Amino acid sequence: MSYDPPKLAEAVVAGERRALARLITLVENDAVAARPALRHLFPRTGRARVLGITGAPGVGKSSLVDRLIAAHRAAGLTVAVVAVDPTSPFTGGAILGDRIRMQRQATDPGVFIRSLATRGYLGGLSRSTAEVVSVLDAFGFDIIIVETVGTGQAEVDIVQLAHTTVVVTVPGLGDEIQAIKAGVLEIADVFVVNKGDLPGAERTVRELESMLDLGGERLWRPPVVTTVAREDEGISNLMAALAEHRGYLESSGQLQQKQEKRMQRVITDLVIDLRAEPVLRLARETGQLAVVAAEAARRRLDPYSAATRIVEEYRSKEEDR
Amino acid sequence: MSYDPPKLAEAVVAGERRALARLITLVENDAVAARPALRHLFPRTGRARVLGITGAPGVGKSSLVDRLIAAHRAAGLTVAVVAVDPTSPFTGGAILGDRIRMQRQATDPGVFIRSLATRGYLGGLSRSTAEVVSVLDAFGFDIIIVETVGTGQAEVDIVQLAHTTVVVTVPGLGDEIQAIKAGVLEIADVFVVNKGDLPGAERTVRELESMLDLGGERLWRPPVVTTVAREDEGISNLMAALAEHRGYLESSGQLQQKQEKRMQRVITDLVIDLRAEPVLRLARETGQLAVVAAEAARRRLDPYSAATRIVEEYRSKEEDR
Repeated sequence: MSYDPPKLAEAVVAGERRALARLITLVENDAVAARPALRHLFPRTGRARVLGITGAPGVGKSSLVDRLIAAHRAAGLTVAVVAVDPTSPFTGGAILGDRIRMQRQATDPGVFIRSLATRGYLGGLSRSTAEVVSVLDAFGFDIIIVETVGTGQAEVDIVQLAHTTVVVTVPGLGDEIQAIKAGVLEIADVFVVNKGDLPGAERTVRELESMLDLGGERLWRPPVVTTVAREDEGISNLMAALAEHRGYLESSGQLQQKQEKRMQRVITDLVIDLRAEPVLRLARETGQLAVVAAEAARRRLDPYSAATRIVEEYRSKEEDR
Repeated sequence: MSYDPPKLAEAVVAGERRALARLITLVENDAVAARPALRHLFPRTGRARVLGITGAPGVGKSSLVDRLIAAHRAAGLTVAVVAVDPTSPFTGGAILGDRIRMQRQATDPGVFIRSLATRGYLGGLSRSTAEVVSVLDAFGFDIIIVETVGTGQAEVDIVQLAHTTVVVTVPGLGDEIQAIKAGVLEIADVFVVNKGDLPGAERTVRELESMLDLGGERLWRPPVVTTVAREDEGISNLMAALAEHRGYLESSGQLQQKQEKRMQRVITDLVIDLRAEPVLRLARETGQLAVVAAEAARRRLDPYSAATRIVEEYRSKEEDR
């Protein structure tokens, strides 16, 4: 099979799964090379529902995602899962649980599961996640679930990517509630208290509801759904909450707003690429970056002057052309 | 007191703590406005030892940092702590535990503690953390401890910022060991098994040691130190491990390499600012970004063409000048 990006894009549009897997690999490994393919696929995107699932390790996100796959499949919808694993920034390895799931769902052509790990450079993971979601969207998946370990930047990025963000917690996670108080509250469209058969489940629900009471009037009040994912309990309630939020997004105009905001971010990133990439490439190729960085490390040159020098060097080369 | 950045920088150099606090606030709130001050302070940086402390919530990072403050103070060194809180991306609130500590250490002029929370934009937190560390360095603190909740991008950034990274775990955290296996292994210069009086502590140490055995030959093998931070146990062993790693960094030339690498990153970020900021500012001010994003959200324009259009618009304006 060809690795030529436009041909890969054609094959993705034609529904070839191997092309899909290859294009995703290309997006992960070489964002610049993948760009023509993404450009080709762009008009076919914007149809999938993107669902973000986040929460601390051990709250049962994977089991929940498993149940959501089954529930959506039962409703006749195809599902792709992107498991974002920011805990393995260096090895680039897949999540163990994800591999297990992959085997389980491998026989169903209506399901696609893929792990993404950060490549260690800033913003790299969130951008490649967004691009992988676009590819899956263009391929035609009805539902795309983005699953991530819940802390910090990854959550912020999910909010910008997902139409509906589900924050998963479990009873008795004192720290977890702290974290929710501190800010996760504002990213959740739906709360799930999983492992709802554990002691203290009702108390956790009550605490979340009180926090939501304190949050004041809002157009959308996130529902708190109790589940026991391993026993398949509460999943229909969760599906109903997701459908309700989707209805809210559409009727309120929030869906369009979210999409415009996301496009602003995508275009901003591309402007940064277009403006800064050639400058930095030249500075790397000529060794200028390494030289000025060594000078700066010795405090002989400040980084602000160093950056200005690099930009001026590029400009003078540009004028020569 | 003046908010004028160069004057603030002068006051920081003169050792005024209120100026220090204000400059940090400026760095957090308006990175562009703070830049002249940072430039002014740059020649005075590069002296502090920067220590990263990371680990999952609940492993006792704060208690450990408390003990490290006391141990370094006892050795006659001044200590600044930057508590990075990526779990509160939206509220910008300080960590609760940190406030408590702040009260405890408030009477000691050789200690400075500050919380930073993400402002919700990509890369914002890691950059402002790096800048705050520079300010504290220029002020003259001997030791700067950067404490962060351990998952993902925040850790990658700590590695790039800290000279020595300490990964904290506790006995019986199954998920935690998984996470370590997945990649944290590679960022740790020193492992701490805290709450070492809990059952299973020895097993956790053995597991970490076996993982390190599997890792093969390396110039530096991270020591595994057992502590009970609340009881002040094992802290002198940890201090010895930190000193040993410092010695390794200096004798191996790694310290210089780390600093050059970090400067490459700082300069790269500044090149991006210089090249992309004016373009994006113009596109925001004229409303062009909003217009093309709305078109892209409707799939009438692809984001790649939109970004190209923005760059061309800027270039044509630039030529008119």
